[in-house]
Amino acid sequence: MTEQEKKERIIKSRELIHWHKEPFDSDQKLQLPQPPLVKEPMTGELIPLPMNFEDLPMCDDFVKIINGRRSNRVYTQQPISLLAFSFMLWAQQGVKGIRGNNYATLRTVPSAGARHPFEVYPLVLNVEGLKPGIYHYLPMKNAVELLKEGDPADEAFMADVKTSVRGQAFALKASVIFYYSITQYRGEWRYGFNSHRVMMMDAGHVTQNLYLCCSALGLGGCAIGALDSDLCDSMIGLDGKDEFCFYCMPVGTVSSDNEDAEQGFYAFLNKK
Amino acid sequence: MTEQEKKERIIKSRELIHWHKEPFDSDQKLQLPQPPLVKEPMTGELIPLPMNFEDLPMCDDFVKIINGRRSNRVYTQQPISLLAFSFMLWAQQGVKGIRGNNYATLRTVPSAGARHPFEVYPLVLNVEGLKPGIYHYLPMKNAVELLKEGDPADEAFMADVKTSVRGQAFALKASVIFYYSITQYRGEWRYGFNSHRVMMMDAGHVTQNLYLCCSALGLGGCAIGALDSDLCDSMIGLDGKDEFCFYCMPVGTVSSDNEDAEQGFYAFLNKK
Repeated sequence: MTEQEKKERIIKSRELIHWHKEPFDSDQKLQLPQPPLVKEPMTGELIPLPMNFEDLPMCDDFVKIINGRRSNRVYTQQPISLLAFSFMLWAQQGVKGIRGNNYATLRTVPSAGARHPFEVYPLVLNVEGLKPGIYHYLPMKNAVELLKEGDPADEAFMADVKTSVRGQAFALKASVIFYYSITQYRGEWRYGFNSHRVMMMDAGHVTQNLYLCCSALGLGGCAIGALDSDLCDSMIGLDGKDEFCFYCMPVGTVSSDNEDAEQGFYAFLNKK
Repeated sequence: MTEQEKKERIIKSRELIHWHKEPFDSDQKLQLPQPPLVKEPMTGELIPLPMNFEDLPMCDDFVKIINGRRSNRVYTQQPISLLAFSFMLWAQQGVKGIRGNNYATLRTVPSAGARHPFEVYPLVLNVEGLKPGIYHYLPMKNAVELLKEGDPADEAFMADVKTSVRGQAFALKASVIFYYSITQYRGEWRYGFNSHRVMMMDAGHVTQNLYLCCSALGLGGCAIGALDSDLCDSMIGLDGKDEFCFYCMPVGTVSSDNEDAEQGFYAFLNKK
């Protein structure tokens, strides 16, 4: 790509940041049918998750939770509890109520116009009480369904996982990788060409809650924005058009003994 | 705008959600100069903010803080303390350390590649110990500087504020409105045309921390994505090109007595 082409692409891409003022009639205003609030179960076999979060040991100092927020890429590969797994899913997308006649979900995170355009697909590698594999989170029921078993000892499977995160091998030692898909029309129905910008902001709400959960629970994670979406979609079983995978965050167990290795990710700075 | 034009705009905008795989040399890779990590003080007269956050009354139950996250648009117009104001700024953008030779800031929120492309400009309407007006937050020092006084009793000034949020009058009763600007090149230097998507995600990290601060402190807020950026830039004194205002969040004091008024924002649902 030439420098001129790069510059043109950057100028085009800058458009995403702006709220465009040109008036238009949204599909909502045109009274076109509202898309479903959530994706239906894909298998029918639900595994309800525990919600006794009061029993989950976590930091009770919010200042420390915020201050302790950091990126962690070195994991000790211990299992995480089913309750911690459940808490992280609920904190990211949990539904607290419904507004109107199935008009909107009220959740633990905000979303522009309460459209909540995401689905979460946790790839379980080491969670107590769950077979390893790819699951779908059902936020209305705080349950998961197993889509596909996936053995962490299966080299071909893990090679796909590694490619899905464009080679960021640290993710393979996580206890769980939360993959996020987006169903664009949920936002477009209301906001048209202004929806993509606010849906990306909404993605940040979700991962920030997950980062803070890690801080509160003593776990570690690091979001990955550069995915191989096509491979993720194929792993999860998404059409890649109406719904596609766009973001993920590996979460694992951490130890302060690994701080030197953690700092190794920044070795390029010391070479200067 | 015709329906066809709308559809074409939507398809164009969809492109911006994707991580584009085409290889290119970023300005960072080309060893072009790195943009400054933060904006320099604009006035030179700094007001240091208190950081004794351990003295700030707040909820000590993280599950309740997450569960209590909500949108609030009805404010009782009480003052908020300087310590609460300081805590909210620090939680949004506070700097915890510097990596390398001024290569990156480590903050209370994550940012892709630790680029942290934002500046925060709180419009103070009712904060103990501060004159009303527009301030600039200096995250390296946890200080603010007053850019311009602005009297909440001045109808012309408040009319501008109302227009800046495209008529969302609820914002005028907030104790503070946090306006966010973006300096695009901080992200583009590293990520080129893939930067805009991740910078919007980063914006969500910032506001999610603010939502949770509100939940922890018993305050209320509701982010506004649809701004009149030009007017915001002119109010704050930004060039509107390299740096421009793109997002804001009013925060105010709330009361459960106002729940009926709060629900009034959803009256359109009851008419169906």
